[in-house]
Amino acid sequence: MSDLPKAIRINEEGPREGFQFEKGHIPTERKLELIDALSGTGVKEIQVVSFVNPKRVPGMADADEVVARMNMREGVRYTALWLNEQGLQRALAAKRVDVKGRIVLCASDAFLKRNTNMTPEENRQATRNMLQTYREHGVPTSHGGLQAAFGCNFEGDISTAKVLAAAESVFSLAREHDVTLKTFALADTMAWATPGSVKRVVGALRERYPDVEFILHLHDTRGMGIANAYAGLQMGVRIFDASVAGLGGCPFAGHKGAAGNVCTEDLVFMCDEMGIETGINLEELIRAAQLAEEVVGHPLPGSVMKGGSLARLREAVSAAA
Amino acid sequence: MSDLPKAIRINEEGPREGFQFEKGHIPTERKLELIDALSGTGVKEIQVVSFVNPKRVPGMADADEVVARMNMREGVRYTALWLNEQGLQRALAAKRVDVKGRIVLCASDAFLKRNTNMTPEENRQATRNMLQTYREHGVPTSHGGLQAAFGCNFEGDISTAKVLAAAESVFSLAREHDVTLKTFALADTMAWATPGSVKRVVGALRERYPDVEFILHLHDTRGMGIANAYAGLQMGVRIFDASVAGLGGCPFAGHKGAAGNVCTEDLVFMCDEMGIETGINLEELIRAAQLAEEVVGHPLPGSVMKGGSLARLREAVSAAA
Repeated sequence: MSDLPKAIRINEEGPREGFQFEKGHIPTERKLELIDALSGTGVKEIQVVSFVNPKRVPGMADADEVVARMNMREGVRYTALWLNEQGLQRALAAKRVDVKGRIVLCASDAFLKRNTNMTPEENRQATRNMLQTYREHGVPTSHGGLQAAFGCNFEGDISTAKVLAAAESVFSLAREHDVTLKTFALADTMAWATPGSVKRVVGALRERYPDVEFILHLHDTRGMGIANAYAGLQMGVRIFDASVAGLGGCPFAGHKGAAGNVCTEDLVFMCDEMGIETGINLEELIRAAQLAEEVVGHPLPGSVMKGGSLARLREAVSAAA
Repeated sequence: MSDLPKAIRINEEGPREGFQFEKGHIPTERKLELIDALSGTGVKEIQVVSFVNPKRVPGMADADEVVARMNMREGVRYTALWLNEQGLQRALAAKRVDVKGRIVLCASDAFLKRNTNMTPEENRQATRNMLQTYREHGVPTSHGGLQAAFGCNFEGDISTAKVLAAAESVFSLAREHDVTLKTFALADTMAWATPGSVKRVVGALRERYPDVEFILHLHDTRGMGIANAYAGLQMGVRIFDASVAGLGGCPFAGHKGAAGNVCTEDLVFMCDEMGIETGINLEELIRAAQLAEEVVGHPLPGSVMKGGSLARLREAVSAAA
């Protein structure tokens, strides 16, 4: 297993994923509490809100307030999601989130149509406009990505050739705007990936773009999240999006079983046990996951938050010896 | 991925795991219904009951009745678990279960003590007595195994050297009794395994016993089940125990979060999508998983039973095209 990375970085997306997806009202106060708990775990990046239309995503109506009031800890990068210029303007106005540009397209034309009512060309044009706006505001851009990179509920399988073509569209937009992409996120938006397709797709992209650091954004709807993350590790992936307690789900994926991102503490547990550094304190993270469950008011899918860490059991064994 | 097996066999353990673990009363009728549903999925082996002390495991009080009344389908092997001679006698008397001997020891002395109140030597002696009984009843024996092969809540980590020594105890008992072990199950009884330790332990055992077919019995308490199964596949493992809908849990593992075996339909889903044959119809299995949830009366952890198969989505996409 010498091919596994020595250390990985996790982008915690639980607040954004969860507050965006949860049906019930969550008081702003409690959102702040969870963000604060996560800030104390050692995680280096937390996506706290999305600046989207509150009519479409009511759980994000207080996004500006969350950002204005959150405790910010040194060494943690607080980020936000936006989907259009209006959202970007809110992110810039909020000042407290680290605004970086990104060029994200969609590997599935059908999902793009359903999600945004745009054709691929319209989406590319909208992205060009965003890149122009980034430039005008001095927003640095070095991140690219693809949604639905492993398959789509509305289009079916996405061939490696199509993923490569869609990725090349992203890189081509970057070149058009003198942007060098350093990181590139492959999102399994609708949970079609298995370890086999993770290896195939990451392998093809790494071969084509050897200087780019690939990021995996894995949804766990079909229980493959951790196995897919392991396959990613085997392919040398060193950055993962994840969601504390498995918060979240994609509101546009078209079925109610859509689970959230791969669970952060389960991923940290696996890495800890395999000697891969994450910089995150698992016990603190388990407490944050338990808090997340309390905040949303219903059970969340994370396993290690229920089963507990092995470090605790090892301590108990040592103490008893 | 040419190292992955072309086909695997799954031993369905949901009925035994689940009925043994569930707190509420489950009517015999409903148990029979679930066994029947599983029999129709294409699975080749179903562990239906354990013949254990009903005072210790009340959910198994109707084990004899379940076996007497279950519908048996051709091509399906119905098995049972027993832990001592009394249990074996019940299995033999039941006639309808396929009784095969096994030599199973425990890699953790602490777990053995807690679970059975025996020392390793006492356990070996009890196993010798069982082997004698198998011989007297003409019960064929070719299966070995180890409990707690990846770590123990009461002993902590189990070194590869200790696992190898414990395995050698099993093989040595086999030789003493002129038994040739063809299969050998490694049980992650308390969910300590990660893909790294699966590879390490399976690798060490395969190297030592190259002619033996290894079986993985993986609990999912810390969400590693599918990733561990994938690591097993990568090590050439071709037989897996699994539990429909993720039914079950170990009543003696010492904490309430102890989840069941790796979920059968999630495992079948992963294999289907990676071109590994299981002989099991995923849609039928999903229906059986949904029935299992109905039978136990509470949500079960399986993911694909909620998220649905991709085959269905592909059909819908084709139909719409």
